[in-house]
Amino acid sequence: MLLEENKKAAERVLAFRDEEGDVSAAFVQAVSEAVQADDSAHLRDLIADFHEADQGALLEALDADLRPRLIELLGDDFDFAALTEVDDAVREEILEELPAETVAEGVKDLDSDDAVYILEGLDKEDQDEILDALPASERVALQKSLDYPEDSAGRLMQADLIAVPPFWTVGQVLAHLREATELPESFFEIFVVDPGHRLLGHLFLDALLRSDRAARIETLMVSDRRRVRVLDDSEEVARLFQRYNLVSAPVVDEADRLVGVITIDDMVDVLQEEADDEIKALGGVRADEELSDTVLYTTRSRFIWLFVNLLTAFLASSVLGLFEGSLEKMVALAVLAPIVASQGGNAATQTMTVAVRALAMRELGPSNAWRITIREALVGLLNGVGFGLLTGVVASLWFRDWNLGIVICLAMVVNLIAGALGGILIPMALERFRADPAVSSGVFVTTVTDVVGFFSFLGIATLWFGLH
Amino acid sequence: MLLEENKKAAERVLAFRDEEGDVSAAFVQAVSEAVQADDSAHLRDLIADFHEADQGALLEALDADLRPRLIELLGDDFDFAALTEVDDAVREEILEELPAETVAEGVKDLDSDDAVYILEGLDKEDQDEILDALPASERVALQKSLDYPEDSAGRLMQADLIAVPPFWTVGQVLAHLREATELPESFFEIFVVDPGHRLLGHLFLDALLRSDRAARIETLMVSDRRRVRVLDDSEEVARLFQRYNLVSAPVVDEADRLVGVITIDDMVDVLQEEADDEIKALGGVRADEELSDTVLYTTRSRFIWLFVNLLTAFLASSVLGLFEGSLEKMVALAVLAPIVASQGGNAATQTMTVAVRALAMRELGPSNAWRITIREALVGLLNGVGFGLLTGVVASLWFRDWNLGIVICLAMVVNLIAGALGGILIPMALERFRADPAVSSGVFVTTVTDVVGFFSFLGIATLWFGLH
Repeated sequence: MLLEENKKAAERVLAFRDEEGDVSAAFVQAVSEAVQADDSAHLRDLIADFHEADQGALLEALDADLRPRLIELLGDDFDFAALTEVDDAVREEILEELPAETVAEGVKDLDSDDAVYILEGLDKEDQDEILDALPASERVALQKSLDYPEDSAGRLMQADLIAVPPFWTVGQVLAHLREATELPESFFEIFVVDPGHRLLGHLFLDALLRSDRAARIETLMVSDRRRVRVLDDSEEVARLFQRYNLVSAPVVDEADRLVGVITIDDMVDVLQEEADDEIKALGGVRADEELSDTVLYTTRSRFIWLFVNLLTAFLASSVLGLFEGSLEKMVALAVLAPIVASQGGNAATQTMTVAVRALAMRELGPSNAWRITIREALVGLLNGVGFGLLTGVVASLWFRDWNLGIVICLAMVVNLIAGALGGILIPMALERFRADPAVSSGVFVTTVTDVVGFFSFLGIATLWFGLH
Repeated sequence: MLLEENKKAAERVLAFRDEEGDVSAAFVQAVSEAVQADDSAHLRDLIADFHEADQGALLEALDADLRPRLIELLGDDFDFAALTEVDDAVREEILEELPAETVAEGVKDLDSDDAVYILEGLDKEDQDEILDALPASERVALQKSLDYPEDSAGRLMQADLIAVPPFWTVGQVLAHLREATELPESFFEIFVVDPGHRLLGHLFLDALLRSDRAARIETLMVSDRRRVRVLDDSEEVARLFQRYNLVSAPVVDEADRLVGVITIDDMVDVLQEEADDEIKALGGVRADEELSDTVLYTTRSRFIWLFVNLLTAFLASSVLGLFEGSLEKMVALAVLAPIVASQGGNAATQTMTVAVRALAMRELGPSNAWRITIREALVGLLNGVGFGLLTGVVASLWFRDWNLGIVICLAMVVNLIAGALGGILIPMALERFRADPAVSSGVFVTTVTDVVGFFSFLGIATLWFGLH
């Protein structure tokens, strides 16, 4: 019977997403109509047993005014964890519309890390209103998590965990698990603590299952020193998970007392967000830009980067301005100059991409910085000579002037070496000064190649042809 | 005693990495000297109990010729799983140096997914040599995995798993786990199968632990339809893990028979690699480029992209060439033209970054393509007007000619709208034609903004000033 029901639910999930995994427009339409008709029974029938991720995806696909109504109509069948799966802007809009009691009721049963995630984006006033509607024990626990700084391990950890003393037997632990009421929704390891709740070690569930019931925990536990401190930065924690293939990790406070556990699913999100931020930063887009943002918000958010770029474009143009006399005498220079700048910019971007990526992955550091810089400079030299010759020949044929070919060839070599050096040294310098290389390397690097490109090409030409 | 030893090991790990997580040069030096002195006892003392990830990081930090020597000196204390943690080029070099018997011996005890990962990069001949040195049962299992296509779920899965019939009790399962010898290194769930080994459901270990020993598995199992097919693409699988916060997932063949299990640690690597590839592609760097590559290899690998870029740069310059007459009469046009092109290129890159990212995350599809395109065009229009006015004023003051200001303002508006449309439509078109938008969008998009930028600015100027 239960099996039958589960199967039916699964078929509905299949209808909700097409084969590519995209949300089906017809399904969204059906839900939308049920909400507009206040038909709570039909709505439950459609989506009550959805996974939180699918309830979240559905919320995002609905019109903004239908989202809070759907939640109220579903009542207990809405899984508030779904709110951890939607864009920040969408979540905040929904939470503002819902009564504080509804939110408190929904948040109460969540794992503490999910509850914190939902509450942390709200302003202090709304947060307090919801916290006040919660039972005292939950309120205190959540408040404590919210007091940790943003992006710290304390914010991401789950406070419910299993901790046992080292002198227990496997049998005692199993009995404890069977009787305990306040258990986390799912867990992969149990922790071993001393009477002061200081972390001694951990034990995976599969080891527990395979051991004799009479065995003492202290003989089975792994006394691994690997642990996360409550104030550690979330990206560092994610890097640790990735490096050591962890599934969960204990979080300790300053006195090495066990205060929580961080699980891999949250770290997957952190890693993904980090990659996301890096891609956006390299493309000149702010990390918090989302597809659901309005035209005005997006325009303003992108304006800043474009403004900085405009300044550097004027700087590059002013180099051209220096050589107005030469340009007037020989218009071919104006036609060819952008090629030198563009080729340098692209070569520099290649080097910069590799450098920014390697810095983020901690693969580029003092131990190999020198070797990689030399390598990049040599790559720049070789590609500079190659493309210098190529461009020189084409330019000579185009303008029937082999002197022009020699000049552009030399300028190309100079600019590709400059680009390679800028591409590696600028990100490393930014990292040294604790700025994010992904965010600002691009402007500096292309400024270098534009300025050096124009200056070397027009400078060499002016000297070579005696144009001044 | 055991505890003491573990602690000492942990302290050594701390010395191996500094506070930032970077590998310590002094430690690498010490290992390097031990290898050169063939001092296997000291080497064991230093790194025998290292985590596979740290042994891998250490291998990468060593000189190439010391790497195979270290492995031979460590013998049984070298964890071959460390080879899954190093760059492909490093791994292949090491495997070529080591005798096939050593590799077979080391690979034998690994989880099957790690063994496959190590073997799959080798050419057929070397692969066969190592497979031949393995016991028959292992050889057959590995060969089967290697026969699945690259980047399929079959390659990534781990063949060892726990599967039980639905009529067993919890007590029977626990007894089975205690007695079984061929268990995976660690696992989070057990699977329930029918007599034909078809997957019926699964059960997390924590649920098993919390249940009564007499309870039957079929009453406890979750009959979830979520499963991976053996030929599914690894990136799709990773997306599934991410969407539903999975820790492991069953893999079934065409007949729905359970053949393996995929765990989250492998998916973290897939997601990371996917992000890595996307970042590199957007920066014009090939996905397989690694920091350990040689100068010549890197030069050649980057040449192709730069060559394509050179062609588009000549195309853009030829537009300038069309207007040689105008440029000659009015050299200010040559000075200002790159500003229009550059500003358009940057605005287009912003839009393209958002589009490529959203396509990769499956957030941009037929259901919202139209809305996002309109939004981007409006953002382009608004920023075009803003920067058009700004540039117009500066250009008017610089060249003391307000007509020039009007012309550049108009060209800027045109180019920023063109950039926005190119930035969204080109990636969507590439996706439609099953090309990777991250790899090739950049060339097309900046070609559009260079050509439109030069053409609109010089075209409008030629008409406005009557220069032809």
